[in-house]
Amino acid sequence: MDAPVQALVAGAAGQIFARWMADHADRVEGALTARLPAVEAHPARLHEAIRYAVLGGGKRIRPMLVYGAGEFTGAAPGALDCAACAVEMIHAYSLVHDDMPCMDNDVLRRGKPTVHVAFGEAMAMLVGDALQALAFESLAAAAGLGASPTAVVAMVAELGRGAGSLGMAGGQAIDLAAVGRKLARAELEDMHRRKTGALLAASVRLGAACGRPLSGAERMQLDRFALAVGLAFQVVDDVLDVEADSATLGKTAGKDSEQNKPTYVSVLGLREARALAQSLRAEARSALAGLGPGASRLAAISDLIVQRSS
Amino acid sequence: MDAPVQALVAGAAGQIFARWMADHADRVEGALTARLPAVEAHPARLHEAIRYAVLGGGKRIRPMLVYGAGEFTGAAPGALDCAACAVEMIHAYSLVHDDMPCMDNDVLRRGKPTVHVAFGEAMAMLVGDALQALAFESLAAAAGLGASPTAVVAMVAELGRGAGSLGMAGGQAIDLAAVGRKLARAELEDMHRRKTGALLAASVRLGAACGRPLSGAERMQLDRFALAVGLAFQVVDDVLDVEADSATLGKTAGKDSEQNKPTYVSVLGLREARALAQSLRAEARSALAGLGPGASRLAAISDLIVQRSS
Repeated sequence: MDAPVQALVAGAAGQIFARWMADHADRVEGALTARLPAVEAHPARLHEAIRYAVLGGGKRIRPMLVYGAGEFTGAAPGALDCAACAVEMIHAYSLVHDDMPCMDNDVLRRGKPTVHVAFGEAMAMLVGDALQALAFESLAAAAGLGASPTAVVAMVAELGRGAGSLGMAGGQAIDLAAVGRKLARAELEDMHRRKTGALLAASVRLGAACGRPLSGAERMQLDRFALAVGLAFQVVDDVLDVEADSATLGKTAGKDSEQNKPTYVSVLGLREARALAQSLRAEARSALAGLGPGASRLAAISDLIVQRSS
Repeated sequence: MDAPVQALVAGAAGQIFARWMADHADRVEGALTARLPAVEAHPARLHEAIRYAVLGGGKRIRPMLVYGAGEFTGAAPGALDCAACAVEMIHAYSLVHDDMPCMDNDVLRRGKPTVHVAFGEAMAMLVGDALQALAFESLAAAAGLGASPTAVVAMVAELGRGAGSLGMAGGQAIDLAAVGRKLARAELEDMHRRKTGALLAASVRLGAACGRPLSGAERMQLDRFALAVGLAFQVVDDVLDVEADSATLGKTAGKDSEQNKPTYVSVLGLREARALAQSLRAEARSALAGLGPGASRLAAISDLIVQRSS
């Protein structure tokens, strides 16, 4: 990820951010490796499949939002690792289930065969189910590593809402029902605010909640940031699905239009979708503007989300 | 459930227990009805399917263990409702996923078409996924209703472990790998301790954790009780799968042997499986013996588990 990161912020600041990203990518990889049960643990085949689904791939954008928001509230690193693992496990489980034949039926993910292709459908289902449980277990561990029990309870509720029927799973259900339909822009936005936005927003909130309590104004601006960045992420995803090839994406490109799914590109056109991404980036930056230099990492992450090429 | 309950404990004690069971069945049904998103909430079809999967059926054995254990530690009723909903939601999600074509491919559950038959496979997957998230959200709510935040954090970790790859989901994976194989009794026990025992044991622990802290000795005896009752439940399930018909069970009878799955009956024979259930009941009662009259409800529940006919 170093090259695009450096290209993005010129000079020394870009180098420092690239280094931070690389350090924290290593950090979350290490934390995930430690938190996932060992391959040797019984049942070994399930643990092998879980590690296959989670480790050695992915952009780790949600963990980066956790770490960035935690930097803003001075959170303990150990607690942030737990929250970062939790959101990444939820994300990884959602990909495993989403790729299954009864959902998107995709065969390629992060440049590798999808879990159900490599391990079978039943195992893929259990990988996702077990990962969701492990995510909450991981979050609970933050209480022993610097987050207050009261904060952790709030984080569990937040992650539950973000992943559940009013959040991510609800967004997937709307997505299912939308295949072949023409959605209005507001419907599309509602779908994506749930499907991807809810977990991205939860990542920001969880990271912040590991540290000092937020003021009401700070919470409002962080939420505004989280919502903008969550939607920007999806708009860029839709643009990349049209523009990039499968090798760059590490997943099947052009899948959305092939499956006749409404996207920002199909609803707005490519040019306007790109413009929307830029305006959401500006909204994200504007939300952070009042939060001072402690929020600069979040600003750099939101730039990266909009300017990524995969 | 009144008839078998009354048949089980003679006289006044039986009537009181039957009344307690009926009251608490109503109680958890009300709590589930309130905690599950309304059908009108968007996306409505998902919420309809979630309510279909959870409400109006099931023996609610896990919630009864929560309430029974909470009675022992003097837990607040509101906190117990949250924990009871959480374990029942985890149980309900596991049934929805387990019934899907890539797993057991079953069409009948609680006397109704299974969720994937009624709502489609993709929706069934999302119902299960959303229910697991909702379970943890429900557990978190116990902190506002009489359980301490520290206890709730421990409960989240406990439920995560019980549902995850070393617990319920792990047991399912072992079950998958066991189809067509002949398991030794120890392997069968390991599978069931995870597949059903882990969540039943978690139910006891969660209910107890809502109230006063346990002494080390109390914790040990309650755990011994939970393990015995968890295994007894499965042994009885295997016996009923052979003895009862589908109408009584509300699910397809004889499915295990048809699917060539190892069961206590196939490994031990029917007579010895029945004897094992009785000896586990004795073990459960012996574990409770030192805990005094506060544990009498748990004793009655374990009798019910062994003597049920569906």
